[in-house]
Amino acid sequence: MSDVIARCRLLAELSEEPGFTTRTFLSPPMRQVHAHLCAWMERAGMSVEIDHAGNLRGLYPSAQPDAPRLFIGSHLDTVPRAGAFDGILGVVLAVALIENLDGRRLPFAIEVIGFSEEEGVRFGIPFIGSRAFIGDIDDQLLAKMAGAIAAFGLDPNRIGEAQVGDHSLGYLEIHIEQGPVLEDLNLPLGVVEAIAGQSRRDVLFEGKANHAGTTPMNLRQDALAGAAEWTGTVEREARAVPGAVATVGRLVVSPNASNVIAASVTASLDVRHVDDTVRHELAARLLRSADQIAAGRCLKVSSEQRLDQPALRMDAALTEILEHAVAAAGRPVHRMASGAGHDAMIVARRMPAAMLFLRSPGGISHHPAENVIAGDVAAALDVGMLFLEELERRHA
Amino acid sequence: MSDVIARCRLLAELSEEPGFTTRTFLSPPMRQVHAHLCAWMERAGMSVEIDHAGNLRGLYPSAQPDAPRLFIGSHLDTVPRAGAFDGILGVVLAVALIENLDGRRLPFAIEVIGFSEEEGVRFGIPFIGSRAFIGDIDDQLLAKMAGAIAAFGLDPNRIGEAQVGDHSLGYLEIHIEQGPVLEDLNLPLGVVEAIAGQSRRDVLFEGKANHAGTTPMNLRQDALAGAAEWTGTVEREARAVPGAVATVGRLVVSPNASNVIAASVTASLDVRHVDDTVRHELAARLLRSADQIAAGRCLKVSSEQRLDQPALRMDAALTEILEHAVAAAGRPVHRMASGAGHDAMIVARRMPAAMLFLRSPGGISHHPAENVIAGDVAAALDVGMLFLEELERRHA
Repeated sequence: MSDVIARCRLLAELSEEPGFTTRTFLSPPMRQVHAHLCAWMERAGMSVEIDHAGNLRGLYPSAQPDAPRLFIGSHLDTVPRAGAFDGILGVVLAVALIENLDGRRLPFAIEVIGFSEEEGVRFGIPFIGSRAFIGDIDDQLLAKMAGAIAAFGLDPNRIGEAQVGDHSLGYLEIHIEQGPVLEDLNLPLGVVEAIAGQSRRDVLFEGKANHAGTTPMNLRQDALAGAAEWTGTVEREARAVPGAVATVGRLVVSPNASNVIAASVTASLDVRHVDDTVRHELAARLLRSADQIAAGRCLKVSSEQRLDQPALRMDAALTEILEHAVAAAGRPVHRMASGAGHDAMIVARRMPAAMLFLRSPGGISHHPAENVIAGDVAAALDVGMLFLEELERRHA
Repeated sequence: MSDVIARCRLLAELSEEPGFTTRTFLSPPMRQVHAHLCAWMERAGMSVEIDHAGNLRGLYPSAQPDAPRLFIGSHLDTVPRAGAFDGILGVVLAVALIENLDGRRLPFAIEVIGFSEEEGVRFGIPFIGSRAFIGDIDDQLLAKMAGAIAAFGLDPNRIGEAQVGDHSLGYLEIHIEQGPVLEDLNLPLGVVEAIAGQSRRDVLFEGKANHAGTTPMNLRQDALAGAAEWTGTVEREARAVPGAVATVGRLVVSPNASNVIAASVTASLDVRHVDDTVRHELAARLLRSADQIAAGRCLKVSSEQRLDQPALRMDAALTEILEHAVAAAGRPVHRMASGAGHDAMIVARRMPAAMLFLRSPGGISHHPAENVIAGDVAAALDVGMLFLEELERRHA
């Protein structure tokens, strides 16, 4: 078995910024990542190409000519100053699975896919790789990134060729959890049953700037005090809804001076839940709370929607096979939701998709300290092999 | 009577930034302000000079050669994009008082003083003009501003000559309230009995940055939620202490991203009260609250003192004369505290000081909309004349 972790660490060196891992869509170090993965893939008996969306695609053929195709992968791009495992671990693991097959043919082909873009860093738009894969690139987005595609030596006019054909068996993505849940439960692996939907809004509280020394407490219209009270409500209400998370992560205070009562505060709101009705109800309740708090303080409040992304339930049949594999590997089966979006969410619009999480030590991700435990990676590789075997048995 | 308001409006045109009133310490437009005031002062029978701290000083002599000297004034500098009345109204009113004397000599001399610097904009250090006046400029501060003094055509080595001599009768400052209290009480004038002391601290809450989607509510160390809870406590505790104000006006959130739980928040704290014991107790209580909130949320908290400025009680005898003048002018006598610092606070270290506030429409200051009511200005002028007459009677 190849050393999956060592490969991830090696690829993490390929960066736009020396000393950190920063590798955005179609950036120069992406070529070197392709070169390394391509070499490993070809050595394992795969034929490799880069599609015109910059996705790396390696085909391990089936014994049968017109066999359906299973896709296994994740993304190759990173956030700025990232860790070594977010995304790329799933691609390196997929290659290791092919290596473990050791040339043995299955009743289905396997295509390992390293998506070119998931994080949304370069163009402020995430999931470009998987969107090209399912044929969901509109002209506006294409125009925006045509120059970058051409500069990488690809042809933006041929991006349509990246689209997946028929006869897909499904998609498996193995990814680090990027959260503390598995660690908290002392479990190596989790089976993702759903990806939470997201509501994002900016909520603007407007009061009146005034002198912090000369304005008595009862004559203030303090936008910051209002936003702070509401932040407390967001936390309290989210805690009361099982499975929900709600976060105020960004505050923009004006004028933001220690001796001036704040005139305005823009607070970000991020609400997630696997049940869209629950999420919408919670978000609406939080906006009503903002109205009530503002009314009680003579503030104005308004809000603007930034995102309303529906939840996604993973494919039941494929997920059941994945659970079967986890159990067969002698590991506890833990179903969980993903609070973060993943390529699987996009790919699921075209084919059955399943997802396996690995424990994230300290819950840390999007940070150089992001890590995995060697035993967990070995467990994931076991599960992947048993998943392929179970799928083989069912397609025999 | 000269039109005090028209003069203030005229001087407000003299600015570093066309269309706004921005006039910092020793900036070019300050020369023109000096020229206008100097002309008015000389016409009223005063001899004028600029001292080497840039203070404008006009002497209206007494009938007696060695008579004590009464100082009346305020500051000539402004915050960026200021109003037309903060500071300079007190100087223009002082000139109008001399004009109203119409050459009549009193048993004391009157020196009208326009302080060069109060707002602390240019060097981040306030009260430079009044500090020079009382001989409180240290070598470090002098070195910092020597170039600016020389560039204005003054001699930094002679700044000591700005220091006031003996035989001072006292200092009267007339200033806009810069707050909403008098308007709220429907009163034109207020007699300042004390200037509040100030505690300023930066309070740092440290938690752990984490993914807003993947981190359950119960596994968060959310620095922003902690700072928000504490902001609510600051408001609540301050409301419970009569006469106290406490403000969180600045929050610096890191990383300040909508989908990341905040790792750290620095919150400013500004606490003011006329009783230093009450202020210190309130500030200490708020810091203990921060500790408790942090402990309950697994956050770290630390704080750094930025300012601990004692309260100042205005001179009892001079303030009583001022009250007498207000009553003699047929106006209600309202004693109040100043939540803002003023030159009078500095000057009081060397001589008896009294202060009169004018109502600020809308409580607005440090803003182009800053204003005064003509009837209030007339009332202040009446009070000023009656103050001089009462002082004359007592020194006869």
